[in-house]
Amino acid sequence: MLQVWALDGIREITPGDDLVRVILDAVDAAPGADTALQDGDIVVVTSKIVSKAEGRIIRADDREDAITRETVRLVASRTSPTGHVTRIVENPLGIVSAAAGVDASNTPEGTVLLLPVDPDASARRIAEGLRSVARVGVIITDTLGRAWREGQTDHAIGAGGIHVFEDLRGTTDAEGRPLVVTQPCVADEIAAATDLVKGKASRRPVAIVRGRGDLVGDLDLPGARSIVRNPERDMFRQGADEAYAEGFAAGRAARA
Amino acid sequence: MLQVWALDGIREITPGDDLVRVILDAVDAAPGADTALQDGDIVVVTSKIVSKAEGRIIRADDREDAITRETVRLVASRTSPTGHVTRIVENPLGIVSAAAGVDASNTPEGTVLLLPVDPDASARRIAEGLRSVARVGVIITDTLGRAWREGQTDHAIGAGGIHVFEDLRGTTDAEGRPLVVTQPCVADEIAAATDLVKGKASRRPVAIVRGRGDLVGDLDLPGARSIVRNPERDMFRQGADEAYAEGFAAGRAARA
Repeated sequence: MLQVWALDGIREITPGDDLVRVILDAVDAAPGADTALQDGDIVVVTSKIVSKAEGRIIRADDREDAITRETVRLVASRTSPTGHVTRIVENPLGIVSAAAGVDASNTPEGTVLLLPVDPDASARRIAEGLRSVARVGVIITDTLGRAWREGQTDHAIGAGGIHVFEDLRGTTDAEGRPLVVTQPCVADEIAAATDLVKGKASRRPVAIVRGRGDLVGDLDLPGARSIVRNPERDMFRQGADEAYAEGFAAGRAARA
Repeated sequence: MLQVWALDGIREITPGDDLVRVILDAVDAAPGADTALQDGDIVVVTSKIVSKAEGRIIRADDREDAITRETVRLVASRTSPTGHVTRIVENPLGIVSAAAGVDASNTPEGTVLLLPVDPDASARRIAEGLRSVARVGVIITDTLGRAWREGQTDHAIGAGGIHVFEDLRGTTDAEGRPLVVTQPCVADEIAAATDLVKGKASRRPVAIVRGRGDLVGDLDLPGARSIVRNPERDMFRQGADEAYAEGFAAGRAARA
């Protein structure tokens, strides 16, 4: 049985706040003895409050400027009939997403939030702090769109003390043949599960997942950075229109 | 509180099996009164057993042939240094995935499984049958890889009697501004959550999700087909190498 619940009563986070303290206070305030942190629990934190605690809030009258500054590589862009430009970009963490993780919701007017500088380090730090109470793993999440599918789901952008993949390589199926699907990204699946209890409009930025203590491990396990595919290995490292345009220019030049 | 558990004791499924009966028998055999199906539960079924029940098992000495036959459109392909070809294709359901959903694991030697012909119809049929007991929603899942990220996660490829998106359009944040992220794909998040309890190597192809009864609705709600992005709207409808090559050829021709 997997149990997933969100912590209530987490106040607005401001720069310098100690998230370990905030989480432990919210756990203590939760009703019921079985909601106390236990060994093997996974604590899932929305990146927004990590960014706020780490002071990653900047003045930006123009969100587009902030996106440009957070962009390492433009992957694709498209202009809607109304003139709105959607940019899919790679951010300094290697994550491909719309708007480089720049977030203008639930922030004071005239400011935007950037993603944590190193969410894996943040997750490890929070896990280390929480381990004064129980041996938990920590995942930091962001909401990301996907290729080929409408809508968004929550993904892991930081991880500390938890296996991000369930490694089934070498496992065989019931007929004794090797499994072809080999690497379930359990960190992303855990992130997705917690979005079902956190809500987007409400202030419930922390959730607990109980029942997969087998995934919790040492603090020096690889972080969520290991989920990011190297662009060289990525068949979709660039949008189709952008790649076509580059090819077209090269084809013209090749004749010249 | 969200609760997620898998049903034990589901036997090997063969063509013609009544999945409604199979699921209800497994529910009845589960220990504990609170595991009986309740209104608002979401029943999540791996596509593999739906395919088997619907007889979508075909003789195929060559899995590659089966993939070719299930391919509506080649999206991208890549040959590894060892000569293995990975094909990302669009299947008849519009779903972009490796191998068109053709599955050769946990099938008798010399055969492969194809995806259900119409997983939304299958999900609605199962939901309708289960509603003789409780008003549940049904999701049918498949394991899919992703652009930009390593590993696989489970996704919804069929849905019956459940909202596949949580519609937050028009919702405002705590500061009263419209939320930018507007359409969490809850069906994919539910699919991902259940992969955490189903396991890949074990025979636990059905899971129950309890705690989001608000998502359960009429049987004529849009299915998982509505999650598939129209290729015309998709910036990643073609692999970067393929688009570049097309552009290159067009650029050469334009000079000629």
